[in-house]
Amino acid sequence: MSPVPPANDTLIRALLREPTPYTPVWLMRQAGRYLPEYMKTRARAGSFLALAKTPSLATEVTLQPLERFALDGAILFSDILNVPDAMGLGLYFAEGEGPRFERPGRDEASVARLAPPDPWAELRYVTDALAEIRRALAGRVPLIGFSGSPYTLACYMVEGGGSADFAIIKRMLYREPRLLHRILDVNARAVAAYLNAQIEAGAQAVMIFDTWGGSLSARAYEAFSLAYIARVLDALKREHAGERVPSIVYTKGGGLWLEAIAGAGCDALGLDWCASLGEARRRTVARVALQGNLDPAVLLATPEAVRAECAAVLADYGRGPGHVFNLGHGIVPSTPPENVKILVDAVHELSPAYHD
Amino acid sequence: MSPVPPANDTLIRALLREPTPYTPVWLMRQAGRYLPEYMKTRARAGSFLALAKTPSLATEVTLQPLERFALDGAILFSDILNVPDAMGLGLYFAEGEGPRFERPGRDEASVARLAPPDPWAELRYVTDALAEIRRALAGRVPLIGFSGSPYTLACYMVEGGGSADFAIIKRMLYREPRLLHRILDVNARAVAAYLNAQIEAGAQAVMIFDTWGGSLSARAYEAFSLAYIARVLDALKREHAGERVPSIVYTKGGGLWLEAIAGAGCDALGLDWCASLGEARRRTVARVALQGNLDPAVLLATPEAVRAECAAVLADYGRGPGHVFNLGHGIVPSTPPENVKILVDAVHELSPAYHD
Repeated sequence: MSPVPPANDTLIRALLREPTPYTPVWLMRQAGRYLPEYMKTRARAGSFLALAKTPSLATEVTLQPLERFALDGAILFSDILNVPDAMGLGLYFAEGEGPRFERPGRDEASVARLAPPDPWAELRYVTDALAEIRRALAGRVPLIGFSGSPYTLACYMVEGGGSADFAIIKRMLYREPRLLHRILDVNARAVAAYLNAQIEAGAQAVMIFDTWGGSLSARAYEAFSLAYIARVLDALKREHAGERVPSIVYTKGGGLWLEAIAGAGCDALGLDWCASLGEARRRTVARVALQGNLDPAVLLATPEAVRAECAAVLADYGRGPGHVFNLGHGIVPSTPPENVKILVDAVHELSPAYHD
Repeated sequence: MSPVPPANDTLIRALLREPTPYTPVWLMRQAGRYLPEYMKTRARAGSFLALAKTPSLATEVTLQPLERFALDGAILFSDILNVPDAMGLGLYFAEGEGPRFERPGRDEASVARLAPPDPWAELRYVTDALAEIRRALAGRVPLIGFSGSPYTLACYMVEGGGSADFAIIKRMLYREPRLLHRILDVNARAVAAYLNAQIEAGAQAVMIFDTWGGSLSARAYEAFSLAYIARVLDALKREHAGERVPSIVYTKGGGLWLEAIAGAGCDALGLDWCASLGEARRRTVARVALQGNLDPAVLLATPEAVRAECAAVLADYGRGPGHVFNLGHGIVPSTPPENVKILVDAVHELSPAYHD
């Protein structure tokens, strides 16, 4: 990997709240099922997991959206659940059901067996992919690494898969909080080691996806999700190869708790589409950059609606540095790729008016 | 129905922010699958819909939880979707799938056919049930009526059922907003007429369930959900038989928008468990009562945890009138009924300390 900063480092500068000539844009799940070329590579790989675990194929799909759209960042193609998978829980995808674990960890004995994996061994396919993507990017745009948050990983580890009400993990949270804290302690150490390995392997920014923290009460969120995100942030490398490595925390449904999340030690907050960027900016008063927050469903609309909603998001944030344009959640699979181009171009065309 | 106020009108007074000696409590889905006696009545009815549509059986299950627990209110047993069902969309329940409509309304022609039903005809089973429940209650506690919000009804009407991403209705929202506004206009008139009929039939408070408003962006929420809730509230009877009839608006995931919802003309806000009651109280500064907001998952825990979390919710609201204790969402089916008793008793035991 190169110690030279990327030719286009607008994303990194915006995440650090430094002035930029325009608002950089990348999109959650920008490499994914809405792209026909992704579907072809995935078919060649045979499965989502085979795709994520083969560095050359992960590299290929990571780069695909950059060929079509003028995106200001690349994000590693991988899964948020590979840390518990590397702990031996056996990640698999049931057709039409989302991720599941063969061996959920719910009792004393199975929790006692949990240990942080060595990212350079069990997660070597990730560090190898990052190194390969960095070489292929050759400094075009920065590369973002990521992981699920300790609590979000625990949701899948304890429930054994997704859930509508998270009754199993919440039962543990309120009945056996110490058991859940033990899982979260392992997860926090594992995620910190994993993200640090990603940084050494080539990630120039890292994002923590707290997809399910928003299912908690305010008090439980602080104790069981945010406290462990803060521990990960504390342990993260802040610089690598002479460059700052910004961190982004995204809690879906966390709009009520932005002040607390901004105080956890991250450089930027990812926002879902329920929060107003302008209000979030007032509430966090220049402590963090803000990333977001167009409703991904807007990309299902007409080109005119895409441009109008893009303009509304830029206006909501307002003038000045510290905004990274993104969706409030991942791209919906039925999104027409043409609309993604319209959005990315609209951000670049309309945003200079908000910068000096 | 009786013009005499109920013997226990603590709930009504708390909803109107009048002083009460303790905090009244009722629970969303207090009549439901966690009660063995409910399962028996439902088995006798043959199906959920037959149960909801037979006034004597709806009365029976509405009263069941009052026999076990010292609840301060009864809520009509019914479905939030019976208004669109009465419009002819054909509500049914696919096993393990939740509610669905046989004939979703997505195009110009089917939307043009939508019209508010006559609640005294097509929804007669509801007005009959309310009258029967009022007679059976004989003034013990107040009876709450309810409906889904115009936008929440539209979600099911357009999607044809539940959805993870609401891609179909949001596509309409951003591509054909006028078509969606037409549906919402019919729904607002229908919900207002339905709730007014419920009030005339015996409901002493009414609640609007905006289960899916929280899936919208802040701007879309105001334009497509809150604006129509406000129209319903404008058209609602505020008094009946010489008594005030308070209104409650509950937007799941709406914690960011409490100021706006409080300004829509309701007497009380229902809060999910993500919001802090104390913070919500500061943000709405005595304009509305607050109802909530224990995480229903707490009822899966130990009796000690139930009491501790109950105490925390009471402390979070703090001293003074205007709090109605409730869950932040419906009771989870796997809840042990003993824990519900512990909760209801704990509210009555611990709350007088917060009242003069």
